Amino acid sequence: MDLLKIQSLTTLSDTQSERDHRRIAIDRVGVRNLRYPIQILDKANSTQSTVATVQLTVDLPHHFKGTHMSRFVEALHAHGPVLHVRNMGALLRSLRARLDSDAAHVDFEFPFFLEKTAPSTGAKGLMDYLVRLSAVSQRDREDFVPTVVVPVTTLCPCSKAISDRGAHNQRGQVTFSVRSEQPIWIEDLIRLVESCASSELFSLLKRPDEKVVTEHAYDNPVFVEDLVRNIASRANAEHGILGYRVEAENFESIHNHSAYALVEHRWAG
Amino acid sequence: MDLLKIQSLTTLSDTQSERDHRRIAIDRVGVRNLRYPIQILDKANSTQSTVATVQLTVDLPHHFKGTHMSRFVEALHAHGPVLHVRNMGALLRSLRARLDSDAAHVDFEFPFFLEKTAPSTGAKGLMDYLVRLSAVSQRDREDFVPTVVVPVTTLCPCSKAISDRGAHNQRGQVTFSVRSEQPIWIEDLIRLVESCASSELFSLLKRPDEKVVTEHAYDNPVFVEDLVRNIASRANAEHGILGYRVEAENFESIHNHSAYALVEHRWAG
Amino acid sequence: MDLLKIQSLTTLSDTQSERDHRRIAIDRVGVRNLRYPIQILDKANSTQSTVATVQLTVDLPHHFKGTHMSRFVEALHAHGPVLHVRNMGALLRSLRARLDSDAAHVDFEFPFFLEKTAPSTGAKGLMDYLVRLSAVSQRDREDFVPTVVVPVTTLCPCSKAISDRGAHNQRGQVTFSVRSEQPIWIEDLIRLVESCASSELFSLLKRPDEKVVTEHAYDNPVFVEDLVRNIASRANAEHGILGYRVEAENFESIHNHSAYALVEHRWAG
Amino acid sequence: MDLLKIQSLTTLSDTQSERDHRRIAIDRVGVRNLRYPIQILDKANSTQSTVATVQLTVDLPHHFKGTHMSRFVEALHAHGPVLHVRNMGALLRSLRARLDSDAAHVDFEFPFFLEKTAPSTGAKGLMDYLVRLSAVSQRDREDFVPTVVVPVTTLCPCSKAISDRGAHNQRGQVTFSVRSEQPIWIEDLIRLVESCASSELFSLLKRPDEKVVTEHAYDNPVFVEDLVRNIASRANAEHGILGYRVEAENFESIHNHSAYALVEHRWAG
Repeated sequence: MDLLKIQSLTTLSDTQSERDHRRIAIDRVGVRNLRYPIQILDKANSTQSTVATVQLTVDLPHHFKGTHMSRFVEALHAHGPVLHVRNMGALLRSLRARLDSDAAHVDFEFPFFLEKTAPSTGAKGLMDYLVRLSAVSQRDREDFVPTVVVPVTTLCPCSKAISDRGAHNQRGQVTFSVRSEQPIWIEDLIRLVESCASSELFSLLKRPDEKVVTEHAYDNPVFVEDLVRNIASRANAEHGILGYRVEAENFESIHNHSAYALVEHRWAG
Repeated sequence: MDLLKIQSLTTLSDTQSERDHRRIAIDRVGVRNLRYPIQILDKANSTQSTVATVQLTVDLPHHFKGTHMSRFVEALHAHGPVLHVRNMGALLRSLRARLDSDAAHVDFEFPFFLEKTAPSTGAKGLMDYLVRLSAVSQRDREDFVPTVVVPVTTLCPCSKAISDRGAHNQRGQVTFSVRSEQPIWIEDLIRLVESCASSELFSLLKRPDEKVVTEHAYDNPVFVEDLVRNIASRANAEHGILGYRVEAENFESIHNHSAYALVEHRWAG
Repeated sequence: MDLLKIQSLTTLSDTQSERDHRRIAIDRVGVRNLRYPIQILDKANSTQSTVATVQLTVDLPHHFKGTHMSRFVEALHAHGPVLHVRNMGALLRSLRARLDSDAAHVDFEFPFFLEKTAPSTGAKGLMDYLVRLSAVSQRDREDFVPTVVVPVTTLCPCSKAISDRGAHNQRGQVTFSVRSEQPIWIEDLIRLVESCASSELFSLLKRPDEKVVTEHAYDNPVFVEDLVRNIASRANAEHGILGYRVEAENFESIHNHSAYALVEHRWAG
Repeated sequence: MDLLKIQSLTTLSDTQSERDHRRIAIDRVGVRNLRYPIQILDKANSTQSTVATVQLTVDLPHHFKGTHMSRFVEALHAHGPVLHVRNMGALLRSLRARLDSDAAHVDFEFPFFLEKTAPSTGAKGLMDYLVRLSAVSQRDREDFVPTVVVPVTTLCPCSKAISDRGAHNQRGQVTFSVRSEQPIWIEDLIRLVESCASSELFSLLKRPDEKVVTEHAYDNPVFVEDLVRNIASRANAEHGILGYRVEAENFESIHNHSAYALVEHRWAG
């Protein structure tokens, strides 16, 4: 950067730093829908590469006219691509320092993959999930909330009970957020959800596997209500989970609308 | 509009009408993603009110710098809210006249509703579909293509054949476009598609209806391949249908991806 | 319905009504993503026809295995198509009665249209907005929250201040929810938001109008922070508004991400 | 896989391989909306990791009842994660061999990143694009079509010409597909598009950069028509480009709809 540019930088007016007189503090201000390549540390202690949609915000006291949007992007770059539960705090603190603010929020939403083994043939395939890592730093408090969005099979108990043959089933989707004493692996949250459905999903199933999966789902019917209750029961039994929110939505195969259920336990925001 | 405004209108430069020298004609130019309330004339000879997402375009000869975007919206307003197969030609001709062009394309995409009767209890409910009406006027030729997007149940024949009990099924979606000698009612296209699936969908089913629907689907398994072939067979047998394109996508209940099939017959564009 | 059907109805097992032993109450259960044609009463005391995406839920005590999903659709049909602030309470009470529950939530989201007059030529056009009407009935309390999603123009004050000519501007989107003593017209909420931006949007502008709109936006630059503060100031000054939540997102013309700001005032949920 | 499983595999009925009698060949059948992590070889000869949404299809002769969906996923796994122009042919041939078919289509759509340097301060940032690589193998012919979806700034020439100050501008989006004699780098297609707009976009701009970008856009106004023509002119001048399709959509800052233009040159499908 040559001298002329530095001079220009110095003399350009800084509208954002002007004083604001409306006396209205802003709860959250920043950038949203920013795509960024990241690497997630997974339970097997290796990293997987993925692409996140990122939201970064801070609070803004009432006397500042505006925040400096470019500093959010700079903080993200300075953080580097590797993201995991333990280093999100550093990004929060960097945002608070660069933006001179009392609170910072970050959200990363990204596809996440697990290798799965088909139940009969043992064929390997990659299943995709959507994961969101949200974290807040406010005064002395840090809050961290992982969310997994897990597609599952649900088979209707009523349809099975009343029909002479078959039972309607469909893809459902569970959105499960937790707060916990200790960091929880994304894989463990996904597995918890999958174990509560009529069946988990796979990307690769050969015919013998399809037979196992079909019969397993038929033998384990769940309403959308059962699904959220099964997950709630499992979460209640996990010592480290302090609170949770679980939503399930069934993309009904016999309707063009969804069945939906929600349970929250010791949950705020 | 007073004199001052008229004067202002006259003296404002008209950049769009300037001469262009790049010698590149534009195939289609206009407006897209315009929401507009419309009324569709249905088979029962009544109109249903809905909201369309509209695209209106014309061609632009190489020597004009730009089209006049506001005229598309004016043509739409002048056409009025009632839309049906027989009056789309008037809109096309109005666009060609107002924009002084040799070709015009219009597309209206909107939710469309049919009242359905549940198969056992006779309970009434409204099922929603997505419909697209596309029309082109080019020189002496007018072309009209209705498309229906129909959600259905598909039950997997392989899963049924290999499993001791149950069979995976799911919501699927068929996109069916036709060209025909005579205008075809949207209702008839939807009914044609629904008759080719494992089951049609309903918004309202009581338990006795759910039993009928479950068993009917189990008794009529279709692969995504069967679904498009059944529809193609039915379309081949309809005298008035000159050509068609049919796509089916199954939102598989055992996978997180879709199964997909396509058949085109005497189809271009 | 003949005798055989009635008998069948009587003897079919009712899985949903069985007793559940997991001791987990469900906060919300019901249907989601149900499309339904509705009519909205607007300020001019006429109704406009549109299509809503509907969510209807109730709570479910811990001892019931499941809710009866078809009753939600029946309650909606029984309510009839006309929806406005004053009759949403009837739908809530109908849901609570039919589902025998202590709380009910309803959400209707739909496109809504306002006729606008272009600022110079007076040309008329229809502008579309997204509106959400949410209502809750819980024990003795009823809560009603209208939300408007309003697209606007925002012109960057910093870009204007530092540049010798021009200023970047873009489409922004404001999501504004309120609680109020008296019902508020959707039109008034939209107008409040539009008056706080660099410019409102129009579907139809002739060249003299485009000149007015361009210069008006240039003369009224707003950051995303200014936009939410202007709206908050206006809402604070309205006597009837008890609390609000206002979000603004700018689809930046110089970035591929958004600028975002949020202010909440006496707001929960 | 033990003996029992192999036996089971042998004796399970293979519905897909049954003979079909409807005499309707299927143009395309396979899997869609499959997420898969891939690595793209870029011009700097390094690879970037991203996540693709994949579609894989083959044709199906009229006498086969169904295809074997799991083989598509197996072919993808066998191909490995690294994807580039030169190895897509291998995947096509693998699909044709595994599915015993005469034609295969593959589509990979994924976010792609370029590092950019801000025009005044030299600050570095990552810009994201959407890229689609499509390839077809049919009899002796292989066809390869890369598509880039490039967000840009467009500033309206008419608004600038008629207004005393300012000019409306917005984010636009160009979708550009080509066929070429030699493989073309994704980076080169993106750069070609960006050079034709009022301004390219950046993820990171400091104030001196924002000044440059604002003034550059004001000095280079383009209609949506100019944008597609500029790109067409550039493509016509590139010796290696045999045909192309270019679409531009402006998310107008003064309207809630888009302006749209399309040019095709020696283009089919």
